Amino acid sequence: MRPVYLDNNATTRVDPEVVQAMLPFFTDQFGNPSSTHGFGAAAFAAVKKARLQLQALIGAELDHEIIFTSGGTESDNAAILSGLEVLPGRTEILISAVEHPAVLTLCAHLEKTRAVKVHTIPVDRHGRLDLDAYRAALTPHVAIVSIMWANNETGTIFPVCKLAELAKEVGALFHTDAVQAVGKLPMDLKSTAIDMLSLSGHKLHGPKGIGALYVKRGVHFRSMITGGRQEHDRRAGTENTPGIVGLGIAAELASKFMDDGTTRVKSLRDRLENGILQGVPNTCVNGDPLARLPNTANISFEHIEGDGIPLLLSRVGIACSAGSACTSGSLEPSHVLRAMKTPDEAVRFSFARDNGEADVDRVLEVMPAIVERLRGVRNSWPDKRSAEDIQSGPCSGAGRSGGRS
Amino acid sequence: MRPVYLDNNATTRVDPEVVQAMLPFFTDQFGNPSSTHGFGAAAFAAVKKARLQLQALIGAELDHEIIFTSGGTESDNAAILSGLEVLPGRTEILISAVEHPAVLTLCAHLEKTRAVKVHTIPVDRHGRLDLDAYRAALTPHVAIVSIMWANNETGTIFPVCKLAELAKEVGALFHTDAVQAVGKLPMDLKSTAIDMLSLSGHKLHGPKGIGALYVKRGVHFRSMITGGRQEHDRRAGTENTPGIVGLGIAAELASKFMDDGTTRVKSLRDRLENGILQGVPNTCVNGDPLARLPNTANISFEHIEGDGIPLLLSRVGIACSAGSACTSGSLEPSHVLRAMKTPDEAVRFSFARDNGEADVDRVLEVMPAIVERLRGVRNSWPDKRSAEDIQSGPCSGAGRSGGRS
Ligand SMILES: Cc1ncc(COP(=O)(O)O)c(C=O)c1O
Ligand SMILES: Cc1ncc(COP(=O)(O)O)c(C=O)c1O
Repeated sequence: MRPVYLDNNATTRVDPEVVQAMLPFFTDQFGNPSSTHGFGAAAFAAVKKARLQLQALIGAELDHEIIFTSGGTESDNAAILSGLEVLPGRTEILISAVEHPAVLTLCAHLEKTRAVKVHTIPVDRHGRLDLDAYRAALTPHVAIVSIMWANNETGTIFPVCKLAELAKEVGALFHTDAVQAVGKLPMDLKSTAIDMLSLSGHKLHGPKGIGALYVKRGVHFRSMITGGRQEHDRRAGTENTPGIVGLGIAAELASKFMDDGTTRVKSLRDRLENGILQGVPNTCVNGDPLARLPNTANISFEHIEGDGIPLLLSRVGIACSAGSACTSGSLEPSHVLRAMKTPDEAVRFSFARDNGEADVDRVLEVMPAIVERLRGVRNSWPDKRSAEDIQSGPCSGAGRSGGRS
Repeated sequence: MRPVYLDNNATTRVDPEVVQAMLPFFTDQFGNPSSTHGFGAAAFAAVKKARLQLQALIGAELDHEIIFTSGGTESDNAAILSGLEVLPGRTEILISAVEHPAVLTLCAHLEKTRAVKVHTIPVDRHGRLDLDAYRAALTPHVAIVSIMWANNETGTIFPVCKLAELAKEVGALFHTDAVQAVGKLPMDLKSTAIDMLSLSGHKLHGPKGIGALYVKRGVHFRSMITGGRQEHDRRAGTENTPGIVGLGIAAELASKFMDDGTTRVKSLRDRLENGILQGVPNTCVNGDPLARLPNTANISFEHIEGDGIPLLLSRVGIACSAGSACTSGSLEPSHVLRAMKTPDEAVRFSFARDNGEADVDRVLEVMPAIVERLRGVRNSWPDKRSAEDIQSGPCSGAGRSGGRS
C-alpha cells in the first residue's frame, strides 16, 4: 500500500522540478559563485536568478533584501542576534509563548548569558496572541520583537503586519519566523512594516539545508556567520548554489500553486477534520478558528495520551506527528499546547499539494479502530480526571466533535 | 575545446557517485530525521551512516565527535565562539596571519566588540609559522588556538599535531581549519591532541552547503546555532539529509583515492610547476618546499600585476585563481602573500582527481604567450622597482625559474 505522508509541516517532498533544476549545479556549473572565471560566472548568475524568484514570492522590494542561509533556524538566530547588536542601547526581546525552539531556545540562552530581558507574550485557548500583553510589553527598551507568522503545530496565524506597525511605533525591530507561512499564504512584504523574515526551503518543497532571511532595505544588519564577503557581507561561506537554485524554483512553484493549490489543500484538510469530528467521539480541532493555515489540522483526542495515534498510524504507513518534529523526536509535551492550556495530547496532520483525497480517506478508514483500541487501553488505567472535566473539557478550538462535548 | 578547471581549492566538481547517492533523499526518503515515523527513520539511518564514513576519513574515535554544519565557515565560527564560551576565564585567541577570512574576520570582530585579545602569529617567506612567536604567545590566558592544517592559497602545511600538544600544555583548546587538508592528507585524529577540526564538503567533491565540525570526546562545546535538539544538541536546524549523505560518500571516495589519487595529483601539479619554471622566465613557486599540499601550485610571475594571468587564461577556457576565491571575488591583494612578504602577484592552480595531463599541457601551451603579452604591457609602465630588486627579489619559495633569479 502506498504510504500516506501527512507531516508536511515537519518537512516536504522536494518537487521533482526542483531536483531537475539543481542537478546541473553539482557536476557542470559547479563553480564557486565568487570565482571570476566562467565556472564562477554561471553559478553567480544562477544565484541572482533564485534571489529574484524568492523576491517575487514574498513581495520584497529588492532582491538584495534576501540573504541566503542554511535554513529557518539559522535565519531566526541571525535575526535576533543582529537586532541586539544593531540597537545596543536596547536590551529587551519580545516573543510569543508558542515560538519555535529556534527562537525560544536562543532567547532562553541570551537571558542566561547576557544582560537581556525576554518578554514572553501568552496566547489564549485558541492559540491567539494576547494583544494587551503585547502592547504593554512594547516599550522603547525593546530591541527586537520576534513573533511567528504562523504556528507550526496548530497553524494559527498571527496578525504580524499589525504587530509590526506597533513595534515600529516604539522603534523596535520586528522579525517574523515565517517558516510555516511562506508558500502557504500570499505575502507582500514591501507594503508592511516587517523588518526581517525567516523562511526555510524544505517546508515548501525545496531542499533541506537552505533558507533565507529577508532584511528590509535600510534596516541595519550584523551578520552572525562571518568570513568571506558572500551575500553582500551579510552571510559568509561559499554559497550553496544547488540549494539556492532549488529554493528559487520552489519559490516559483509555490507562487504558481498559491491560489488553486491552496484551495485544494484546504478542502483536503477540511475533509479530514470533518471526517474525524464526525466519525470519532470526543475530538476537537485546536487553533484559531478564524485564522489558520489552510494545510494544518491539529486535533485533540480526549482520553488518549502520548504519541499513541501517530505510532499506530505509522504502522499502517501513515505519517503524521504528535506535536512537532522540529524539536527532534523529543517526547516532551508540546509547549504550544501547554501555552494554550489544552489538556489532551493532539495529533498534527499537515497537508501539501502532493496529497490527494485517497490520503484523507485512508486516515478516516483506520482512525476509529485505532482510537477505540487506544481508549480501551487507556480506560483500564485509573482516570486522572473526573467525568465532568472530560465532558466540559477545554477542547475549544476551531471545531468540536458531537460525542460528549 | 573542453574547459580546464584548475581551481579546486575554490571548489570541486561534485563526484557523480555523490550525486547519485543524494538523489533518493530529495524525493523518496525525504523525511525529517527527527520524525518518529518511517519517513523519518530512513533519513535518520542515512545520517548515521554518513557520520561513520566521515569518522573513518578523519580517524575520529567516535562517530558522535562529528557535528554536521553548513560548511567550513560555520564550523570555524562555531569552534572559536565555543572556545570562548566554555573557558570564560580566558580571553585570548591565538591564530596565524594566514588563516582564512572565516577565522580572521571573526577574530577581528571579537577583538572590536568583546574583551578579547587576538595574537596573530607571523609566517616566514615560505609561509611557515614562526614557532618561537607561537610559544611566546601561548599562555594560560589563551582560551583557543586556531591554526589551519593547510593554507588554501599556497598549500603550506602547518605542524598542527605538534602545535596542539603545545596548546594542551597551557590548557588552551586547539582548533584547526582543515578545510583544505581533509581528503588530501591522511588523518588520524584520535591519536592527536587536536580538540576541534573544521571541514567542508565542496572542497572534496561533495556538495556545497554542508560541512562538519569535529569535537573530540570530552571537549566541552557550546552550540552557535540554537533551537531544536539536532546533532545531539550541538547544532540546531533540520538536518540537510541529502547534503549529509553526499558528504558521507565524498568522504568514502576520498579515503579510497587517498594514496594513488594523491600521487597522481601531485605528479600533475609537479609537471605544471616544472613546466612553468622552465618555460617562463622570472617565476617562482610559493609555499613551504618541504610541507605542501600535493594539489596546490602557487606561482609568482615577476613584472605582472593584478589578476592579468587568470583573466587571460579564463578567456581561453582555463580556470585558476589570483589569490583565493573564498573571499568572494575581491581584488584586494592576498593577505597570505602579504604575510609572506612576497612582492609579486601570484597565480594559484589547484588540482583534483578529475584533472589529467591534457589539462597541464594546455596551460603550458598558452602560458608563455600570455606572460609575454602581459609583461609587454607592464614594461610600458614606469617600473616601480629597481632592476636589483627584481633580480634578487624575495621570490624564494619551493622552486625558482632559471631566468634572472
Ligand atoms: C582554509 C579554508 N577555510 C574555510 C573555508 C570556508 O569554507 P566554506 O566555503 O565551506 O564556508 C575555505 C574555503 O572557502 C578555506 O579554503
Ligand atoms: C516555525 C518554524 N520555525 C523554524 C523552523 C526551523 O527551520 P529549519 O528546520 O529549516 O532550521 C521550523 C521547522 O523546523 C518551524 O516550523
